[in-house]
Amino acid sequence: MKAAIIGGTGYGAIELIRLINQHPYLEVGSVVSNSQAGNNFSESYPHLTQIIEQPLETFDVEAIAKNNDVVFLATPSGVSSNLVPQLMETGMKCIDLSGDFRLRSLEQYEAWYKRTPTDYEYIKQAVYGLSEIYPETIKTASLIANPGCYPTAATLGLIPILKTAIADMESIIIDAKSGVSGAGRGLSLISHYAEINENLKAYKLGAHQHIPEIEQVLSDESGNPTTVTFTTHLVPMTRGIMCTIYLKLTETISTKEIVNLYNEFYKDKPFVRVRPEGTIPATKEVLGSNYCDIGLHVDERTNRVTIISVIDNLVKGAAGQAIQNANIMFGWDERSGLNLLPMYP
Amino acid sequence: MKAAIIGGTGYGAIELIRLINQHPYLEVGSVVSNSQAGNNFSESYPHLTQIIEQPLETFDVEAIAKNNDVVFLATPSGVSSNLVPQLMETGMKCIDLSGDFRLRSLEQYEAWYKRTPTDYEYIKQAVYGLSEIYPETIKTASLIANPGCYPTAATLGLIPILKTAIADMESIIIDAKSGVSGAGRGLSLISHYAEINENLKAYKLGAHQHIPEIEQVLSDESGNPTTVTFTTHLVPMTRGIMCTIYLKLTETISTKEIVNLYNEFYKDKPFVRVRPEGTIPATKEVLGSNYCDIGLHVDERTNRVTIISVIDNLVKGAAGQAIQNANIMFGWDERSGLNLLPMYP
Amino acid sequence: MKAAIIGGTGYGAIELIRLINQHPYLEVGSVVSNSQAGNNFSESYPHLTQIIEQPLETFDVEAIAKNNDVVFLATPSGVSSNLVPQLMETGMKCIDLSGDFRLRSLEQYEAWYKRTPTDYEYIKQAVYGLSEIYPETIKTASLIANPGCYPTAATLGLIPILKTAIADMESIIIDAKSGVSGAGRGLSLISHYAEINENLKAYKLGAHQHIPEIEQVLSDESGNPTTVTFTTHLVPMTRGIMCTIYLKLTETISTKEIVNLYNEFYKDKPFVRVRPEGTIPATKEVLGSNYCDIGLHVDERTNRVTIISVIDNLVKGAAGQAIQNANIMFGWDERSGLNLLPMYP
Amino acid sequence: MKAAIIGGTGYGAIELIRLINQHPYLEVGSVVSNSQAGNNFSESYPHLTQIIEQPLETFDVEAIAKNNDVVFLATPSGVSSNLVPQLMETGMKCIDLSGDFRLRSLEQYEAWYKRTPTDYEYIKQAVYGLSEIYPETIKTASLIANPGCYPTAATLGLIPILKTAIADMESIIIDAKSGVSGAGRGLSLISHYAEINENLKAYKLGAHQHIPEIEQVLSDESGNPTTVTFTTHLVPMTRGIMCTIYLKLTETISTKEIVNLYNEFYKDKPFVRVRPEGTIPATKEVLGSNYCDIGLHVDERTNRVTIISVIDNLVKGAAGQAIQNANIMFGWDERSGLNLLPMYP
Repeated sequence: MKAAIIGGTGYGAIELIRLINQHPYLEVGSVVSNSQAGNNFSESYPHLTQIIEQPLETFDVEAIAKNNDVVFLATPSGVSSNLVPQLMETGMKCIDLSGDFRLRSLEQYEAWYKRTPTDYEYIKQAVYGLSEIYPETIKTASLIANPGCYPTAATLGLIPILKTAIADMESIIIDAKSGVSGAGRGLSLISHYAEINENLKAYKLGAHQHIPEIEQVLSDESGNPTTVTFTTHLVPMTRGIMCTIYLKLTETISTKEIVNLYNEFYKDKPFVRVRPEGTIPATKEVLGSNYCDIGLHVDERTNRVTIISVIDNLVKGAAGQAIQNANIMFGWDERSGLNLLPMYP
Repeated sequence: MKAAIIGGTGYGAIELIRLINQHPYLEVGSVVSNSQAGNNFSESYPHLTQIIEQPLETFDVEAIAKNNDVVFLATPSGVSSNLVPQLMETGMKCIDLSGDFRLRSLEQYEAWYKRTPTDYEYIKQAVYGLSEIYPETIKTASLIANPGCYPTAATLGLIPILKTAIADMESIIIDAKSGVSGAGRGLSLISHYAEINENLKAYKLGAHQHIPEIEQVLSDESGNPTTVTFTTHLVPMTRGIMCTIYLKLTETISTKEIVNLYNEFYKDKPFVRVRPEGTIPATKEVLGSNYCDIGLHVDERTNRVTIISVIDNLVKGAAGQAIQNANIMFGWDERSGLNLLPMYP
Repeated sequence: MKAAIIGGTGYGAIELIRLINQHPYLEVGSVVSNSQAGNNFSESYPHLTQIIEQPLETFDVEAIAKNNDVVFLATPSGVSSNLVPQLMETGMKCIDLSGDFRLRSLEQYEAWYKRTPTDYEYIKQAVYGLSEIYPETIKTASLIANPGCYPTAATLGLIPILKTAIADMESIIIDAKSGVSGAGRGLSLISHYAEINENLKAYKLGAHQHIPEIEQVLSDESGNPTTVTFTTHLVPMTRGIMCTIYLKLTETISTKEIVNLYNEFYKDKPFVRVRPEGTIPATKEVLGSNYCDIGLHVDERTNRVTIISVIDNLVKGAAGQAIQNANIMFGWDERSGLNLLPMYP
Repeated sequence: MKAAIIGGTGYGAIELIRLINQHPYLEVGSVVSNSQAGNNFSESYPHLTQIIEQPLETFDVEAIAKNNDVVFLATPSGVSSNLVPQLMETGMKCIDLSGDFRLRSLEQYEAWYKRTPTDYEYIKQAVYGLSEIYPETIKTASLIANPGCYPTAATLGLIPILKTAIADMESIIIDAKSGVSGAGRGLSLISHYAEINENLKAYKLGAHQHIPEIEQVLSDESGNPTTVTFTTHLVPMTRGIMCTIYLKLTETISTKEIVNLYNEFYKDKPFVRVRPEGTIPATKEVLGSNYCDIGLHVDERTNRVTIISVIDNLVKGAAGQAIQNANIMFGWDERSGLNLLPMYP
């Protein structure tokens, strides 16, 4: 099956190509980049010299539909809202890695993204692709809104405990840290090496567009409107996200019991690894892989649980989960193309 | 005035030497390292070739007293508790950078440090050297317990608001991040380059020995027993600490008002820079300097304030504050030897 | 086919496991670590939690022979010289990643490694596993001396031009740079994060044990005794080796002609990518993959060619080439288990 | 004395400000940035909040002349060639950190910089500011062409041996490595964090504009036209340059003898530290300081000497040497404002 990749010169696209290369049922089809159309792909990415030697194409919906079986959109926010409707009219299944189809509320989209939202008709059709939580709707979806990197780590870390009665739902604080690749390949001072190397920086306090996405999922899963405090930090490393999540408990429970609860919740989910009591995952322990590792610790002095959830932002936080969703959509083993071990060190 | 430095081959000592070199009234006297006594200093630290070319000495209390006017102890926990009493008997003023004299409660020391505490007689004499908060007692002290790196950033970030009536004292969460130099020069897998480079790691959840130190200061300053949730992370950079602090507010207040409150509180303190509304400090913005920079943001959705406090862990978090305390003790300008600008980039 | 791995807690072993996990014909058998025998593997390497959950074993030649089909030794120098003879007596094929069987001259081994060499009987049987150059002897070997990381990059960069008449053989200078993982997982100040981060350091000038290895290969391939100047540097990154090689030309030749010559030489070698004129490889462009990328530039002002050769030191410089050699020995496609794209960024 | 700084938002200017802040006789006067004129300085550089709170000015030659006593130009190539003539007409002394006045040959400038050179009248007046080598002409200069970062490290490493009869002048190879801050604050993919972090990259092979500058100095000092092979690499760190220099010897000499020769040559030069035999400097050992450290090693097998020369590219390679030149010009102690120890770690 051929996969078209739109937004072919961003990091999301590159990671899709790395994973599709391992995939037993998918291969790279059209690679589209309006800004660099005509150039050979390996000019932009010399690491693919002699591997992907095809020209970058312009966006041509008919050509894409003719030569490909599924479309991955790895474009910035505001782009796929225009392209997806055209692609869906041809009957192609779309997996969108941007934020354009994630929020059900048009008002929220407008408020947080500062952009005009897409047509509600398409929003309605979009299935939120948090693979471990929504496999049934993903199976039958035509359009996947692939989750954001922070929301993936945050919600996988929180959902099991939100399903219990012991979580104080008003107490959720998510202190999130990301490697710099999350800011993409577009040039900006915040990603300029000498500025961010040997530096740690908080950004977008109270204003990150992933806040409403996280709250939408947590509200759905807990059954109650949920508000969170969410702070993002840039860490001087290329890949990796860690969410350190703080939650007040309404009753006493031990770390061991919570670990058991999480183990039970994720027992059939190959890409979520709940760590045993006393161990806490580090971001490098999932580097290059599709795992989300979760560690748990109850602080008896304050009756809070600290949840540490780590992913590779470009894999489980983007391209890997997109492939995982394609696997679910097409009825393949969920792990197809994703059986890569973390690269360590 | 000559300053003896005990623990001469650790990073704290090295930073003391860098700063004393700038100091108008201090110069480096004896440098003591039992483990490397006899070696020339620049063998351990070639960056001081032709600058500090003296041999490392063994600990000899009489020689130290004879040849020096003040003593800085930059030794690991458990060492200065033995040395300080000997030094004080000679009448020398001591500034201890370790945790041995910081906790007033012997039980707490034993519980968190897993060591036998020192004699209470000396604990009683120790003045906690948080320079901005306790200048009056520092002035007349014979023994300074120089604050820990995390407690410095955390308490300077919290004290102004704890003095008001608007802080929910049970809601304090401190998410702390540190560069790897905080782990010292002793070899361990956690500081091994290939393990921590491109990695982000939480450690000592609920067990860090700085927890009781922070709680002691906050309890003193707020006037009520205060408990905090405190989580530490290692960030792949050499220097820098950031505390991201979350606090529930008991009434509505704007970011602007809190910024004003902090500005007022720290108006005569040259090393605390409260950032204007809308800007948040990054660790590199204090690199190599004695500044503690503080940024504030009220999230109106959740009525929480987020406080970002950054320091260079080896300067304001260790050697710089020690020099600042010496300046206060000896009646010099607080800024002597510390007027270094942050090194950027 | 089951592969035993000796030296199971080093970085070489970990990388073997990552690659064997992708391999169609190999799977991980016994993992041996005398120092940590009995421990569960994922205690040492939590990134393999729920993936490799077997205990580390002690070295027991009979058990290894019984339960495995091939042995990879990823032990430090001086260890496999003792183990390989025992393993070979059982008839097992051995691939040794250490330097113990690489030098044909016992005197050279003793002079550069400062150790007693192994029995010459075994040295004689060892085939030097530079996969692109010696496939015919590798095919029938019982014992492979897997090349060192620097020699792999250096010799693959030099051999094609040494086969011509245009190289001034006395002019070879190899300026080599390596990521820190090359120093292994053993603790030392040189690999201590705060010492090597933001630092660049030359080491072992004129004394690196890879010098005689490089000279042995170049002498063999050029047909003349060859001496090189070889300098190694540690670069603050985890993985990657670059050799910048300088060679005087005895006649005038263009960059284009040399690129053609290299392309011709490596035309059937899937893991050597000769870059087109005007482009030069960077280490990240082979990260995590088995590629050796080579760039060439003739400086007409000085009539020297500069050859840039890059590899991932843990893949083509260690575990990847070991797997490649196993593939050749067992008659499998050379690329089995190695079809991983470079991870970028 | 007031120092105007032109090009106030680049890294060179920032470093000038850091050093001038320490200087007993200089203080910051006008800071000029045409692109950001009107903005408060600390908006561009928050690390200077509450320290340098003056607005950035436009270039106004009269205002500069009126309010300042000396001018430092830290502008990109091609800018100061226009500004210096205007400034000199007012009688102000200028220190130019760009390449515009370094090359005496207009043809060379045009060929390597791909720009129109400045008027030869001004080139003639410019004194090349390699402080250790040309103090006598610097003393009386009105215009200093401050050396490039690579040429400083390379020529200080080479000059002592070029003054002897034992150097094979046709054999000079300079393998140079730089931290990323050398590329400046202008945005480009080569300085984009995710591209250069964990990467090592050679660039501008045979085309770097510092080649003619190095050759000009070496020709002057050796008395013979000198050609070098010079290769530059970007290393994933912010600051630091290392030149690893290879030179064939025409007779036999020991490392000890060469170390003595260098010690003798630099005996009155406080900022050049020749390392004792057997030790080699690393870039971090000069970080933040004005030192140039030099290590030497003779390889008896090949009769080549390897010279390792390290500087901080922004200090001795730019702003520090500019201050050193101002000190010499104005008759102050050469070390004024530069007595900062390297920051370690």
